Amino acid sequence: MNKIEHLGIAVKDLEKSNALFAQLFGTAHYKMEEVASEGVKTSFFKTGPNKIELLEATNENSPIAKFIEKKGEGIHHIAFEVDDIRAEIARLKAEGFTILNEEPKKGADNKWVAFLHPKTTNGVLIELCQERV
Amino acid sequence: MNKIEHLGIAVKDLEKSNALFAQLFGTAHYKMEEVASEGVKTSFFKTGPNKIELLEATNENSPIAKFIEKKGEGIHHIAFEVDDIRAEIARLKAEGFTILNEEPKKGADNKWVAFLHPKTTNGVLIELCQERV
Repeated sequence: MNKIEHLGIAVKDLEKSNALFAQLFGTAHYKMEEVASEGVKTSFFKTGPNKIELLEATNENSPIAKFIEKKGEGIHHIAFEVDDIRAEIARLKAEGFTILNEEPKKGADNKWVAFLHPKTTNGVLIELCQERV
Repeated sequence: MNKIEHLGIAVKDLEKSNALFAQLFGTAHYKMEEVASEGVKTSFFKTGPNKIELLEATNENSPIAKFIEKKGEGIHHIAFEVDDIRAEIARLKAEGFTILNEEPKKGADNKWVAFLHPKTTNGVLIELCQERV
């Protein structure tokens, strides 16, 4: 795992949170993107080599809506950049981690993504992501 | 804010979690450190330019003990590296954020640290940190 590619933060109101995080970082988000298949609208901020992704649910069945209902707003997942997502999935599966989607799927920001179940990772939802080429 | 300096993860049993995260990253933690003033034992892993800090409470009044009691194990805070922590504290205070300690204090890993109250940052506990020289 090369670095923290991004950190995902669940928010109720993307517009308000965009303004808040712009104050925090001293600079505005640089893009927004909707991922219809995940039921989320996202925005991205840069902090050096890392990104912060804000996520707002677009429907009540969205994982983000469920997360906020259960835990409130806050950090939702960590995404690590990997060079070969299929090799990492195979390695982590062999180590005993539960992969939520063994077949990489298309995520935001032009990535192939896969998630590890937080029950096998100390309560932390971990995303692996690889740039789509 | 230059980058995510580290991500803090609250764990119940540091030894078990050290083994778990070593499997996850494919490499062991590179150091451990106790911060008596915060009531925590910590371990650090490297992922490229970022670090992952695991935190175990050393007493029941530790903020980590209280966090786990309320929310369970999981991501506890994000720490951003800053060049001038006093200037950042002043800037963020002027922006309306609540700083938990306006006077920087000594944290783990040879850092000056200050925390922002999660109520003013969308539920996210944010740490500013600057290398101590």
